[in-house]
Amino acid sequence: MDRNIYIDNMNLDEALELWEHRLSAAGCLTAMDPEIIAVDQALGRITAEPVFARLSSPFYNAAAMDGIGVCFQDTIGAGEATPVRLSLHQQFEWVNTGNVLPDKFDAVIMVEDVQPIDDNTIEIIAPVTPWKHVRTIGEDIVTTELILPDGHRIRPIDLGALLATGLTEIKVQKMPAVLVIPTGSELVQPGEPLQPGNIIEFNSRVLAGYLIEWGLQAERSPIVTDKPAALKKAIIDAVDRYDLVIVNAGASAGSRDHTAGVIEELGDIVLHGVNIKPGKPVILGIVKGKPVIGLPGYTISAVITLNLFVRNLADTLLGMQSPPAKTLKATLARPLSSKLGVEEFIRVKLGQVGDTMMATPAGRGAGAVMSLVQADGFLRVPAHSEGIGPGEKVKIELLRDEHEIQNTLVFIGSHDNILDVLANLLHRQRPICRLSSAHVGSMGGIMAIKRSEAHLAGTHLLDEETGEYNIPYIKKFLPDIPLQLINLTYREQGLLVPRGNPLDIKGFQDLARREVRFINRQRGAGTRLLTDMHLGRLGINPEQVNGYEREEYTHMNVASAIASNNVDTGLAIRAAAVALGLDFIPVAQERYDIILPKAFLHDPKVIALLQTIRENEEFRRTVAGLGGYDLRDCGMVIYEQ
Amino acid sequence: MDRNIYIDNMNLDEALELWEHRLSAAGCLTAMDPEIIAVDQALGRITAEPVFARLSSPFYNAAAMDGIGVCFQDTIGAGEATPVRLSLHQQFEWVNTGNVLPDKFDAVIMVEDVQPIDDNTIEIIAPVTPWKHVRTIGEDIVTTELILPDGHRIRPIDLGALLATGLTEIKVQKMPAVLVIPTGSELVQPGEPLQPGNIIEFNSRVLAGYLIEWGLQAERSPIVTDKPAALKKAIIDAVDRYDLVIVNAGASAGSRDHTAGVIEELGDIVLHGVNIKPGKPVILGIVKGKPVIGLPGYTISAVITLNLFVRNLADTLLGMQSPPAKTLKATLARPLSSKLGVEEFIRVKLGQVGDTMMATPAGRGAGAVMSLVQADGFLRVPAHSEGIGPGEKVKIELLRDEHEIQNTLVFIGSHDNILDVLANLLHRQRPICRLSSAHVGSMGGIMAIKRSEAHLAGTHLLDEETGEYNIPYIKKFLPDIPLQLINLTYREQGLLVPRGNPLDIKGFQDLARREVRFINRQRGAGTRLLTDMHLGRLGINPEQVNGYEREEYTHMNVASAIASNNVDTGLAIRAAAVALGLDFIPVAQERYDIILPKAFLHDPKVIALLQTIRENEEFRRTVAGLGGYDLRDCGMVIYEQ
Repeated sequence: MDRNIYIDNMNLDEALELWEHRLSAAGCLTAMDPEIIAVDQALGRITAEPVFARLSSPFYNAAAMDGIGVCFQDTIGAGEATPVRLSLHQQFEWVNTGNVLPDKFDAVIMVEDVQPIDDNTIEIIAPVTPWKHVRTIGEDIVTTELILPDGHRIRPIDLGALLATGLTEIKVQKMPAVLVIPTGSELVQPGEPLQPGNIIEFNSRVLAGYLIEWGLQAERSPIVTDKPAALKKAIIDAVDRYDLVIVNAGASAGSRDHTAGVIEELGDIVLHGVNIKPGKPVILGIVKGKPVIGLPGYTISAVITLNLFVRNLADTLLGMQSPPAKTLKATLARPLSSKLGVEEFIRVKLGQVGDTMMATPAGRGAGAVMSLVQADGFLRVPAHSEGIGPGEKVKIELLRDEHEIQNTLVFIGSHDNILDVLANLLHRQRPICRLSSAHVGSMGGIMAIKRSEAHLAGTHLLDEETGEYNIPYIKKFLPDIPLQLINLTYREQGLLVPRGNPLDIKGFQDLARREVRFINRQRGAGTRLLTDMHLGRLGINPEQVNGYEREEYTHMNVASAIASNNVDTGLAIRAAAVALGLDFIPVAQERYDIILPKAFLHDPKVIALLQTIRENEEFRRTVAGLGGYDLRDCGMVIYEQ
Repeated sequence: MDRNIYIDNMNLDEALELWEHRLSAAGCLTAMDPEIIAVDQALGRITAEPVFARLSSPFYNAAAMDGIGVCFQDTIGAGEATPVRLSLHQQFEWVNTGNVLPDKFDAVIMVEDVQPIDDNTIEIIAPVTPWKHVRTIGEDIVTTELILPDGHRIRPIDLGALLATGLTEIKVQKMPAVLVIPTGSELVQPGEPLQPGNIIEFNSRVLAGYLIEWGLQAERSPIVTDKPAALKKAIIDAVDRYDLVIVNAGASAGSRDHTAGVIEELGDIVLHGVNIKPGKPVILGIVKGKPVIGLPGYTISAVITLNLFVRNLADTLLGMQSPPAKTLKATLARPLSSKLGVEEFIRVKLGQVGDTMMATPAGRGAGAVMSLVQADGFLRVPAHSEGIGPGEKVKIELLRDEHEIQNTLVFIGSHDNILDVLANLLHRQRPICRLSSAHVGSMGGIMAIKRSEAHLAGTHLLDEETGEYNIPYIKKFLPDIPLQLINLTYREQGLLVPRGNPLDIKGFQDLARREVRFINRQRGAGTRLLTDMHLGRLGINPEQVNGYEREEYTHMNVASAIASNNVDTGLAIRAAAVALGLDFIPVAQERYDIILPKAFLHDPKVIALLQTIRENEEFRRTVAGLGGYDLRDCGMVIYEQ
């Protein structure tokens, strides 16, 4: 098997500089040719030259008010005690706003200040100054004056200025045309039947979506198989017809990664491999004077490298300067380790908790599309850094508007399926409001409250000694924080097994059986503690349990592992079993509470959330449908300090 | 003549509340019905319900790296000194990223860590943990999990998440359809022949442009004449076929303003007339359950009232919450008087000068389209305020991105046509950079430097005593500010007259002739001082000059007044005469300099500007073509302190 495993490892700054230099040398870093289009079609386009007024606006002296046109000299001396009468046609004419002011007049008196005497006579009690309430020729725009500079994105009001001066056509930059070529024999179009090993072809849609939002004309080609000849033909055709070509993927060093080889055969590889994570195996090439970029196959890697290596190029073709990334300063919730020598792009969630903008790292997998859907921004960890300490201030490149982040309620702690329901209803009740939940287990939630990282924490920790839920842990770990403990639900925990329970699992005692593949929850999860308690009571040593060391972070991931036959059983809530059609062996009913520091009691987001759990009928109905929940105390304050 | 001059005068807050209340009562304040569309068409649309995953992603266990699939148990004990050999098909399979991991394996070893021995054998020197480098089923998304909440604008990455879980269709909010109806017998379509009294119909394009940018489907109707029957038919047709109808204009109280009457006949007028400026005569109505809004005819008034009364409604129909206006705090450069009892919307220009964000009020005319093209934001002056003092901090609602404003070079002072040339070339050389120039005359420029309102000021003030330009004024008014005085140009000033000079004007002595209508420049303009000096020398009293009190702010406006025969002559630079084809009677050559405080010498925007005037060949060529300029000292430092 021919395996080319070598790719470069250039630092990002050098890579960007080299790319710009080579694009520039190849003549790719200039704006597109201009084209002339109708002003009526020009919204959002970029001017290709400065635009000057053709006519003055207004192009005649116009009444600026409804009233009468007069000669200012005829009004001299008018006063309360010395009203002046004017006669129609000789000394005044009625005019509406925008009417031509007849040549013999040089001022307008507002209708409110005119007292009609008869059909042909009016009276005024104040004089008027010359050109009062007249829009004189060129008042707004004088012919030949500059209307818009070049490189300017045309806004709605600009259409008005252009048309007002008699322009009906305008020279704008052509829209760069880009083709996104999805490659890979494993790809299938959305909606086609799926076999294991198939990958739904969605990357080209994501990439084209960004390119369209940046103002390019982006098209997608059919899927090209992993045959070099097919890819070669596709690229040759594309560089003839498009200004920019994106190939996705085949950028790695696997046996079916032909993109680099084909680009090299057809033109020049500027670079293959940049020292970033994710996104390392990007290919930057030039074929027949056109940039051809091979993006990595993982969606997150593709999106990051598209932004790094295509955004500026796209803006230059459009004749614009790229706007700088919107950023904000945030405090890192937890320490973050990073590989020395690699520039890392960490997705983070953000939330304003009290006075502090907190950043919490989200998933790091390059294939985790949802982590980018849910992310609020990126944190760049430079290559020379081994990580960032907790509480350190960091700069975040934003993926959402700051006002959206300001309106995010941060929920950290134990995972429960109710949180999705709550997020939806909260958003519907108060659309500006988002619920961002991070699933780090009950202890993680308590620690987040201690470190002021969250508005709310979800917890279901049983104190074995007292048999009491949550309160002993609060007293131990959060003694100094005034807070309320509010019940969300009672819920059933149990062992999930495939439908029909093929291994005949009856309870925790069966986890000691060698053939039973178990899946555990992460350290600090209340569900893990529940497992440990039951195993302890039964005298089962964790080492006896096949899979004790394998950890998942949510009930749904545990259920998914069982549903897909990766494992045989795991402890989770009944709702997860119901969702995925698994059988459920009840083990315990437990209390799931929300910790709410009193500092946030008057936060409108918190008020909206409490209102939802206490009063919203749809909330109760939807939760009842999930299975295994008891809302008898939902919303009740269980304890406060 | 039937003149209905009564319109309401409701305060804005009350008006907004009443409008919301009445829309809500009429059932207009709910999101549109949903529709199901292909995910491939869904970019930018708004979800109409929460979206849950159909499939897990990945939906099979997949290799997360290129390498080999193995059983972790076969690798136990592997080390540098104790390599383990594995045989193809029995103990390992080659896998590429994304491949199915065969059922019997539970881990992947990266190709970099695999030493091939022969075609069927490899060696490893480290063990692997279970599920290492495997993307297990549901790792990214578990079936039934929430992907997107409702009311969410679909971004490119969201397309990926939707398609990855097997969704090909999605329920989104229908796009509200809105019709903009231009009314007015004086309106003509762009490009049609123009007669005095005609108005080019561009407002509907501007309004539709904003509605499109807000996400609505906006169409424009043909022009409807000022006949009530025609307008009535247009509105009846429109409310049947559209969700929202905008009529522009006929909203005032003039004799041809039928919009309110027609809406009242067809449905309900909620309100006619709001206590704001500009924008007072807006009409808010409901016809057959559809909002029908009559916007004022002046473009600025129409745009302001569209934002105030339609934006929220549009977002509600779209199922979204309106984002808050982006604002910043700025310092008002000059005192601003405002009419007590009216809420005013003042267009302002902004510029970061040193540490201070300065706001300078721009044109206030409701018809001044260019003032909105050039504005950076709006300042609201509440009804209870008579004005704002200089140096007061004010909140500005932004019309441009803040980064654009940060990159604006603020030039205040005397007007010259070269400034347009400079603005263009500066923008081309450094696209992020804008030159914002305010024309307030030479003395205004000097005062702006004194108050730290501007980076640069243009001045051409002759000290009559010494015959010296600018320097005596700097010594007098700016003694404490370290600065450079840099020459921009020498230029010819003269009296402009219509081509052929019909009144046979030879010089300032002719201004004393009664029949000669003169137009002056504003107080503080160098050109005004030049006029005064010449009149003084000739012993002509300003009261003898017909039109001395009429003021314009720029050379081009003076030239325009003469070209349109509103006046007979005025003093201006030769370039203005050349631009509008007027005759020119030279009066003086004067020196036009730029004052540059040394504090800004290292500002990259300033550096770019100086480079342009000192080195750019196109600058010199273009200026030469304007007429009347001498660039022999252009860019030279004339004086510094």
